[in-house]
Amino acid sequence: MLDKNKKILIVGLGLIGGSYAQGFRRAGFYVGAITRSQESIDYALENGLIESGTTRVTKDYVSQFDLIIFSLYPKTMLAWIEEHQHNIKSGALLTDVTGVKCSVVYEIQKMLRKDIEFIGAHPMAGREVYGVKNASADILVGANYIVTPTPANSPEAIGICESIGKILGFAKISRLTPEKHDKIIGFLSQLTHCIAITLMNCHETEHLAEYTGDSFRDLTRIARINDSMWSELFLMNKDALLGEMNLFIGQFEKIRDAVQNGDEEVLRQMMRKSTERRICFDKKSE
Amino acid sequence: MLDKNKKILIVGLGLIGGSYAQGFRRAGFYVGAITRSQESIDYALENGLIESGTTRVTKDYVSQFDLIIFSLYPKTMLAWIEEHQHNIKSGALLTDVTGVKCSVVYEIQKMLRKDIEFIGAHPMAGREVYGVKNASADILVGANYIVTPTPANSPEAIGICESIGKILGFAKISRLTPEKHDKIIGFLSQLTHCIAITLMNCHETEHLAEYTGDSFRDLTRIARINDSMWSELFLMNKDALLGEMNLFIGQFEKIRDAVQNGDEEVLRQMMRKSTERRICFDKKSE
Repeated sequence: MLDKNKKILIVGLGLIGGSYAQGFRRAGFYVGAITRSQESIDYALENGLIESGTTRVTKDYVSQFDLIIFSLYPKTMLAWIEEHQHNIKSGALLTDVTGVKCSVVYEIQKMLRKDIEFIGAHPMAGREVYGVKNASADILVGANYIVTPTPANSPEAIGICESIGKILGFAKISRLTPEKHDKIIGFLSQLTHCIAITLMNCHETEHLAEYTGDSFRDLTRIARINDSMWSELFLMNKDALLGEMNLFIGQFEKIRDAVQNGDEEVLRQMMRKSTERRICFDKKSE
Repeated sequence: MLDKNKKILIVGLGLIGGSYAQGFRRAGFYVGAITRSQESIDYALENGLIESGTTRVTKDYVSQFDLIIFSLYPKTMLAWIEEHQHNIKSGALLTDVTGVKCSVVYEIQKMLRKDIEFIGAHPMAGREVYGVKNASADILVGANYIVTPTPANSPEAIGICESIGKILGFAKISRLTPEKHDKIIGFLSQLTHCIAITLMNCHETEHLAEYTGDSFRDLTRIARINDSMWSELFLMNKDALLGEMNLFIGQFEKIRDAVQNGDEEVLRQMMRKSTERRICFDKKSE
């Protein structure tokens, strides 16, 4: 378990970084922050999300922290660690909140000083709005949290990383390899975002609102998307995402062909399977 | 406007038929019903959804009604009208709640006696559960309602059909040609159901629940689907649905190719377009 004397540094004070900060502060931890904008620091100080913060990366500031949580875009995180790891205290633990794992976890573990450790994690939480001003520890509560250890990680680091999930109130804390994580997230999250984007690119949709039921609204809620972050996430998970997209196309074309051929039995089989699986899913989620 | 002396017959007392019945009863109309199961009639009588009902189609019963609303699967409705139209009172108006229009409206108008009139309508309301026991007039309130007149329809019939929407509390009542309706519904409703079914057919999903965020749950809610009804709806809207499915595949493959080629700019363009369009959509729906 993470002891309360450990000081926590959030690098990147956006929606998720700010929500983590608030959660740790509520739990009684000392939380500092480094982020690009002074405005975000000021907001977080005024609203009690952090106890200290700075826009400048200095050895004096960074070296006081025992646990560093990166809440940056993946490439920015890689560059930050490469540039600033000499400022980190020996024995510190590093973790993250990034939505892709293979392409960051192995890179970081390869370049990292031997006296500090990095372990990947992915909180399955988010909103359609951004920035620290929309942050709230409440968006983490009840969400899912995935830890992605590799053979390079110590049992102690895995324990601390899982305790982060517990402290912040996540409902289900699980472990996956980075490879398994990327495949599952490629399917559950990235593919569904691709679908929502596709739907909104099919037609001028403004005049369609008066004809919709709930289904179109549900399927396109996530079409409001941060293009710089998600294009980076898609491309950093290229192989897994392509695999899921091609699988989806294959199954979708099976329905398309059944409609084309008037093959009612194939349609009904696929519908019965989807119904049966979705019912199990509901139960699981309750 | 529909005057309160007109007697209304619901043919097919399921989720939507029962909800219509309750709505009209609340508004003070006399509502009768014909449906296959005596149990449904008994339930509807006991719960005040109808004033009378029968499982047998007789001239005595049918000929007392001025407005007949079909809440049957499309093919069953076509067969019912063909078999029983001789029992309908001269001057009666017929309408429906079916999710496809070209393949039912023109067929019915072609075969119908000249002294009665049929006009198509589609309430954009539903639930993932079925049957009269789940019926409620409340599911109609605030939903969208589309009337699909053809050149064969009289202005009076169009007026009465639109007043049905008003009496039942629909939010937005609009008119479309059957062709326009089928294309729009092919996109907004049928395509989205195809997507949800596809997603649930890609993988054994039971173990995935612990890793999901909201997006997968949102995109697959409608994967719980009545296979006999929806396969019929898909096949009766074949051309329009195929057009929308192929359009979707084309746009989806554009994203797939951009991921494959690492083309960040195409991804970001599509994401910006989806974001911009979805924002307009939100405003429209508020």
